[in-house]
Amino acid sequence: MHNITVLGAGYMGSAITFPLADNGNKVNLWGTWLDDSLIESSLKGFHPKLKKPLPEKVNLYYWQDMGPALEDSEIIFFGITSEGFVNVFKMLLEHLNPKKDYYFFKLTKGLVEYNNEIVRASEAANDMFANKFPDKIFSLATIAGPVRANDLSHRMPSASVYGISDEKLRIILPDFSTDYYRIFPSSDLKGVEICSTFKNIYAIAAGFCDGIYKKENIGLYYNTVSFIFNQSVVEMAKIIRMSGCSQETVYDLAGVGDLHVTSTTGRNRRYGEMVGSGIDGETAFKKLVEEGEYGEGYIALKLAIPWLSNLGNEAGAKDFIKNELPLLDTLRNVVYGNCEPVSEFKKLIMKLGC
Amino acid sequence: MHNITVLGAGYMGSAITFPLADNGNKVNLWGTWLDDSLIESSLKGFHPKLKKPLPEKVNLYYWQDMGPALEDSEIIFFGITSEGFVNVFKMLLEHLNPKKDYYFFKLTKGLVEYNNEIVRASEAANDMFANKFPDKIFSLATIAGPVRANDLSHRMPSASVYGISDEKLRIILPDFSTDYYRIFPSSDLKGVEICSTFKNIYAIAAGFCDGIYKKENIGLYYNTVSFIFNQSVVEMAKIIRMSGCSQETVYDLAGVGDLHVTSTTGRNRRYGEMVGSGIDGETAFKKLVEEGEYGEGYIALKLAIPWLSNLGNEAGAKDFIKNELPLLDTLRNVVYGNCEPVSEFKKLIMKLGC
Repeated sequence: MHNITVLGAGYMGSAITFPLADNGNKVNLWGTWLDDSLIESSLKGFHPKLKKPLPEKVNLYYWQDMGPALEDSEIIFFGITSEGFVNVFKMLLEHLNPKKDYYFFKLTKGLVEYNNEIVRASEAANDMFANKFPDKIFSLATIAGPVRANDLSHRMPSASVYGISDEKLRIILPDFSTDYYRIFPSSDLKGVEICSTFKNIYAIAAGFCDGIYKKENIGLYYNTVSFIFNQSVVEMAKIIRMSGCSQETVYDLAGVGDLHVTSTTGRNRRYGEMVGSGIDGETAFKKLVEEGEYGEGYIALKLAIPWLSNLGNEAGAKDFIKNELPLLDTLRNVVYGNCEPVSEFKKLIMKLGC
Repeated sequence: MHNITVLGAGYMGSAITFPLADNGNKVNLWGTWLDDSLIESSLKGFHPKLKKPLPEKVNLYYWQDMGPALEDSEIIFFGITSEGFVNVFKMLLEHLNPKKDYYFFKLTKGLVEYNNEIVRASEAANDMFANKFPDKIFSLATIAGPVRANDLSHRMPSASVYGISDEKLRIILPDFSTDYYRIFPSSDLKGVEICSTFKNIYAIAAGFCDGIYKKENIGLYYNTVSFIFNQSVVEMAKIIRMSGCSQETVYDLAGVGDLHVTSTTGRNRRYGEMVGSGIDGETAFKKLVEEGEYGEGYIALKLAIPWLSNLGNEAGAKDFIKNELPLLDTLRNVVYGNCEPVSEFKKLIMKLGC
């Protein structure tokens, strides 16, 4: 049994409390300054996003109470959006006990802006931690895989991959799993993290097909969706290869598995559908935000372009996107270049195969 | 422009005539002895399975007219079920002109029974051809990828992989492709063929989840479907590795891509749904047959067990299925072992991850 604090009371932060509590751990859930209404409602017995009560044993904390929320815990989960990650991590550092050893588990996906650079969230965390505690080891797992919060909190069989920085973390993992939440450890933290960024981008592509074809061709463009799904996997594998990570990572839960669920359902897919149907990229993003949702793929795509450029030299990477990632290039042209989706998509199809 | 004869007037045989004819080829479509009603209706302007007229320029032939159907052609497509493949191939051999060089393209998926052995369809074809024409080269492409016949005949963007036995075939492929039918050549014929067998088996697994969970959990078990999709890819990759084929094949259109479309829709997925909901394996198969459909995955699963055994020695392979292919093992237990689906599925979940 562990004392665990989960930071962030949105979808994933709240959902992870289900297996953690079911496995007998003591779980504190802390909401950010954006989560007050979620905490308030949860205290009354109903989480508005998950549409159900949280597990009884979960203790709830408002953002002002980070200190008490962390007091007994050595295990900390991040259920923060990529946009809020750096700020929450900075705040967290002020509350950590220098005498304790912590284990961090990051549900946050995607790239972050940190010190005027675009980096993986774990790189930013590592740097902030090392500045504060230069003599301590930073033990982090980055979590990915096909896990929608609603399904997890409904206790449906789900599989998650934990990319670990440190073999010590491997021993703890069975204490988080249940008969419906299965955990697969991976030593390729970096690969897992990169996959979890790009699957949000490529999930836009699946929705994009719906936006273009759904109106007039219901039930008759499965081939196209699967063609694009496959192309997404092919391109993610190239990115993983270029990053020096393990190919196995992309062909397993963090890549293929997570892309599968994200392409089937969810906000990024829906974002793609809006864009494919002709709504411009920015307007579509604003629509999601108005509905209280967050289009992570839209942000990730914006950050991915310069990030991919840093993978090689700038000129080489420009060619890398154009030549090797034609689907990502198409998404960029439509989402950020205001290109017309149908003609861009037709051009893409003609670039593929013979 | 080529003269092309397509054998088999069912879903795929008929659908492939669309890109072939649209690309300016002269196309003959020959129906087997089971296809008389399809030919009759198509002659009147309506293909009953595709629910539309075939392209105007396609010439139609009843099974008695194989000779005339083949007369001018050097390119022959097989759109035959795996059960009918050997018999049609034997019949074909009687009509081939020994002075001509033929190119064969096989849409047939799966394993076949041939000379009391279970072999890949291309192995059977190769052997029959070599016996009849010992001095001739047998040039064959095996076709796979996420291509549903209905979508293809609706001219929706589709991607197909052609596993070729012979580099000469590569040159012809652009003569079959159109702006909606993109062709990807592969030198791994064997790997493409094995993938096209096993994706039909693993598509049962996707339906299986629906059978177990759909009734009471609509919209809340996407995680489970994606978990199982991912596990299918992992197990197909192991089979491909054990067969000595290229890993790239399974992570591209023949594997991931085709599994994606087959798991999303179609007969094998539906078969799995019936079995998951508690209908026994044989009854579910008979139901499909009564509706004029054919459950290729059910047959493929039956043939796959002894075929996998021949991959190693018999004892080793038995362990290989049990230890390395737990999902396939579960499908076997339910479909052919009359095990109860829900408890078998729960056992499977507990075997995966930690």
